[in-house]
Amino acid sequence: MEVMRVLHMNKGNGETSYAKNSTVQSKIISVGKPIIEEAILEISCNNVIESMGIADLGCSSGPNTLAVISDIMDMVQATSRHLGRPVPELRVFLNDLYSNDFNDIFMSLPAFYNRLKEEKGIEAGSCFIAGMPGSFYGRLFPSNSLHFVHASSSLHWLSQVPAGMESDALRHLNKGKLYISKSSPKSVLDAYSLQFQKDFLLFIKSRSQELVSGGRMILSFMGRRSADPTTEDSCYHWELLAQAIMSLVREGRIEEEKVDSFNAPYYAPCAEEIKVEIQKEGSFIIDRLEAFEIDWDGGAVSDIHTAEGKLLTGQRVAKTIRAVAESMLESHFGIGQDVMDDLFSRFAVIVGNHLSKTRTKYIDLVMSLIKKG
Amino acid sequence: MEVMRVLHMNKGNGETSYAKNSTVQSKIISVGKPIIEEAILEISCNNVIESMGIADLGCSSGPNTLAVISDIMDMVQATSRHLGRPVPELRVFLNDLYSNDFNDIFMSLPAFYNRLKEEKGIEAGSCFIAGMPGSFYGRLFPSNSLHFVHASSSLHWLSQVPAGMESDALRHLNKGKLYISKSSPKSVLDAYSLQFQKDFLLFIKSRSQELVSGGRMILSFMGRRSADPTTEDSCYHWELLAQAIMSLVREGRIEEEKVDSFNAPYYAPCAEEIKVEIQKEGSFIIDRLEAFEIDWDGGAVSDIHTAEGKLLTGQRVAKTIRAVAESMLESHFGIGQDVMDDLFSRFAVIVGNHLSKTRTKYIDLVMSLIKKG
Repeated sequence: MEVMRVLHMNKGNGETSYAKNSTVQSKIISVGKPIIEEAILEISCNNVIESMGIADLGCSSGPNTLAVISDIMDMVQATSRHLGRPVPELRVFLNDLYSNDFNDIFMSLPAFYNRLKEEKGIEAGSCFIAGMPGSFYGRLFPSNSLHFVHASSSLHWLSQVPAGMESDALRHLNKGKLYISKSSPKSVLDAYSLQFQKDFLLFIKSRSQELVSGGRMILSFMGRRSADPTTEDSCYHWELLAQAIMSLVREGRIEEEKVDSFNAPYYAPCAEEIKVEIQKEGSFIIDRLEAFEIDWDGGAVSDIHTAEGKLLTGQRVAKTIRAVAESMLESHFGIGQDVMDDLFSRFAVIVGNHLSKTRTKYIDLVMSLIKKG
Repeated sequence: MEVMRVLHMNKGNGETSYAKNSTVQSKIISVGKPIIEEAILEISCNNVIESMGIADLGCSSGPNTLAVISDIMDMVQATSRHLGRPVPELRVFLNDLYSNDFNDIFMSLPAFYNRLKEEKGIEAGSCFIAGMPGSFYGRLFPSNSLHFVHASSSLHWLSQVPAGMESDALRHLNKGKLYISKSSPKSVLDAYSLQFQKDFLLFIKSRSQELVSGGRMILSFMGRRSADPTTEDSCYHWELLAQAIMSLVREGRIEEEKVDSFNAPYYAPCAEEIKVEIQKEGSFIIDRLEAFEIDWDGGAVSDIHTAEGKLLTGQRVAKTIRAVAESMLESHFGIGQDVMDDLFSRFAVIVGNHLSKTRTKYIDLVMSLIKKG
């Protein structure tokens, strides 16, 4: 699977779209907000900036995309006011892979610019929002052009299925699973960990060239608390999705070989793995690194102990996962809408049952990094 | 009609798409190429540029979009080689209205970047291509950030239907016509001319803030040779399209009122009108201003004096006009695909007949402007 070509959140505004099913990611953004605020304040205090370069990496398309930008603008405005300085010119770059639905974002910009003007008094001619498509595992922006980089719910996507795992010899090592699992051999764990190290190092190196000295990055993505990558908080949603897929395999509706050869281009690292790469690269200081628990359904209120609540919760989680994973599943399994619908109905039931017994949560790692002078 | 929301070239890659029907625009680009080359050489000779800001305004989506950028890169490379200097970092901005098919452009970027590397030796990390959606009748880019601006086949689109012509009192002044015509009253001619002046002045003012001193613009768009805006070279394709629409009106398939109230947000100025606005604004020197004749079908070879050649030529012209005008016609007339197909079949016949008698051509005005120091 060519991740760069295939991976995208579900497009448009329909029932299964990412735009309609991104509450978890919105929750993750709001959890990181105070840390963003602090970073913006620090950048502005330590530098007089006439034109501020801001990039959101893995912006996707939907309500979260421009909400993040709007929040950042509020913070820049508030900070400028606080410091008695004029608001800098804002150069905003929205980044995601080439297949992201940029058309959808761009169509919502006229209304967004109107709101900027009416609500914040920010005039056209002082804020420029561009789309910058491409992989953040590599250079995206001119040298020394950015002051603030934000990446939320995107860095847990690897640049590719772990190297080697697409080869004939290794692709079937992870039989019946989609990601690291209790049953995975050590070679699978190692392949995933190595791919993460390689990708994350390249990410940090690339940003290091693009950020000005004193510039800041807030990175927030799925991780885990334990050093062990097979603990539930880091991989159990993949485990349950594998269960749903295997039930279709047993009915002959999905080929077993396809499951064996699928390995998600995803990795939930622990803090230590992140620190090692940042220190190896050497141009960033870790100002903060915190872990937050996030409900699988983003914290919507349903009583999981009633049959209805269980189903509703399961369905919400299923929709969230479908909105992010469907492009990959479609590409790899080649299944149509009917099987896809069936798969996620089954997954919803499995998730509901699981959560009624164990309230497994995602671990969101949030870090604030400062580019050294 | 809200031009900013409605106007876009036909999306995708189908039979009626702009991507498949933009030979005329490609011809116009190739006619302007020597003038672009000269401008790039002048910019590079007079300045040592480490990071070059380049914008293509009204980039649309299709083969022309990246072909222009590729040409400009070739010229920058050749010029740098000629001067014995390193090739500057290239910051490229593709601009068009919010509803342009940016997704289509972005999906073709991975292959484009590969070609840059293989054919030109331009590495990722030295060329950054972003999409900047918005109207060029207003600010689009940060102050003093651009060295070269290119706009081809886009500035003949006005920001709106001429002011006042959408009011109840004036909207029916141009009965049975879509644009300026021999039968149009003077008030219609004046409204069009005024809207052009206002729009073009705003365009020049906005770019004046965005270009560095010594920066250059190549603008190329539909115009006319004569001071009289009712001559065939400036408006006859609209006249013939009106004939095709009126034939559907007579059959009750389009409402006459809709024709009377439609006025294309388009204007083909003469050189004098352009010069006046540039001088009024005052920050640009006109280095060149030339007029080229362009065949309505982009110069494809068919013998117009055979029945088959007449039809083929008519069809090619009809497809070209449909690819650019369909979004507006659809929005205003609310007609479905079947009526649209019928309309352009009729238009093809009318155009073929006309061209077999009079070889009317478009007039493409190309100008090279230098931002004063």
